[in-house]
Amino acid sequence: MVLEQNDKLILLTNDDGLYANGLKTLIEVMEEFGKVVLVSTIESMSGMSQALTVKIPLRVKLLEENEKHRIYTCNGTPTDSIKLAVNQLLERMPDFVVAGINHGANASVSVLYSGTMAAALEGCLYGVNSVGFSLNDFSRTADFSVCKKYIRIVMEKIAVESLPPGICLNVNIPSLPENEIKGIKVCRQARGNWKEEFEKRKDPMGRTYYWLTGMFQNHEPDAMDTDEWALTNGYVSVVPVSVDMTAHWYMDKLTGRFN
Amino acid sequence: MVLEQNDKLILLTNDDGLYANGLKTLIEVMEEFGKVVLVSTIESMSGMSQALTVKIPLRVKLLEENEKHRIYTCNGTPTDSIKLAVNQLLERMPDFVVAGINHGANASVSVLYSGTMAAALEGCLYGVNSVGFSLNDFSRTADFSVCKKYIRIVMEKIAVESLPPGICLNVNIPSLPENEIKGIKVCRQARGNWKEEFEKRKDPMGRTYYWLTGMFQNHEPDAMDTDEWALTNGYVSVVPVSVDMTAHWYMDKLTGRFN
Repeated sequence: MVLEQNDKLILLTNDDGLYANGLKTLIEVMEEFGKVVLVSTIESMSGMSQALTVKIPLRVKLLEENEKHRIYTCNGTPTDSIKLAVNQLLERMPDFVVAGINHGANASVSVLYSGTMAAALEGCLYGVNSVGFSLNDFSRTADFSVCKKYIRIVMEKIAVESLPPGICLNVNIPSLPENEIKGIKVCRQARGNWKEEFEKRKDPMGRTYYWLTGMFQNHEPDAMDTDEWALTNGYVSVVPVSVDMTAHWYMDKLTGRFN
Repeated sequence: MVLEQNDKLILLTNDDGLYANGLKTLIEVMEEFGKVVLVSTIESMSGMSQALTVKIPLRVKLLEENEKHRIYTCNGTPTDSIKLAVNQLLERMPDFVVAGINHGANASVSVLYSGTMAAALEGCLYGVNSVGFSLNDFSRTADFSVCKKYIRIVMEKIAVESLPPGICLNVNIPSLPENEIKGIKVCRQARGNWKEEFEKRKDPMGRTYYWLTGMFQNHEPDAMDTDEWALTNGYVSVVPVSVDMTAHWYMDKLTGRFN
């Protein structure tokens, strides 16, 4: 892959592993926009949030290269992948960091746990236009073709005008036939949480262990300006996500409490 | 440990492991406020962000119990520890989730990578008053005694009046003698990022590997309302941190761009 001066450079990663169908679809669409460098783990890294690998060394392997893309595998988290790429693997700073297409939605508070959205946040911290895409379908055989149209629309928007510093996009696409999707809706993150129901089991030695399971609870199912509402009602949700987690609206009140 | 009806129940965790001095100090102070249940890994879990363990089963062990506290170890992340405690180990919902005292500051964008702050965010998602405490000193032998006074002040404030839903506190304490600390300052998260300088090495087989290192870059060193400024200038910084990552101020503009 030769990166010409006019080529856009697009850095991709995901958290479902190198052989996920969502990633294949993303590569196809992104090659329409520029030269693609992908860094991802072979295995899935779901729920890794913005975790960093600090206790074991990172290893990287160039797996495949052609005129349109280079594909690396690494043994780190999605966030490690972005850091490694920016600092060690890319010719220059990328024009876009794009993560996904995640198998399963990353709406509401899932943004906090998602490795996909962490990668977008990481791109954003480097000052790069960054987006995470997710399809609201966990199945391995999900049909990602419906995503292409909406990925194109979003990428064209941010190619024309960059996102403000410190903001990336969290895009969730409903798992519906294309003619049933009602369009794009800019939303806020719905209030909710996961209700965990750990499965408590015994291993063959009689020792207890737990598997994390859980069900999402939407605390405001009727709020039409949320990503959960949009997804449930057939819209593609687009949430501007900030790397600044400060609750600015509460600062004056809190200052008063400490005086 | 018997939990009486009037006892406050305080859930603790950290990301520096069970034998960290910061955790010992935190337990001592928290026992002044109620009955303490601690769930933590033996080893450190730094930089784990809000990662969840989904690929290996979780195991828990009751290590120690006396009149004032119960101490469990588990093999999960700080976020797993909070989830396991709330769902499997505690008599009832805790009154406080407290994480730390972290060895090293968690100011600015470190909130995104920190396992300590992730635990506080997790408590917050359960609707519990939650705080993460950090001392601006990475050394293993750091003197945590100076933290006690400020932990008491913060805990007394949130005991009197709960934090609003969806907000927890990120408290960073300078590593200074008590008489040099100028007081508490409510702040916003400073804008910055980590400039990574991976160390590239060869293993004995001649294969390349990388260690993540890095240096924090404050993008606004003169902004006096930030946590970085407060810490550098001898103040304890208190940032209200929101589980809602939506960039609300940008929603109208973004909506316009998609119409």
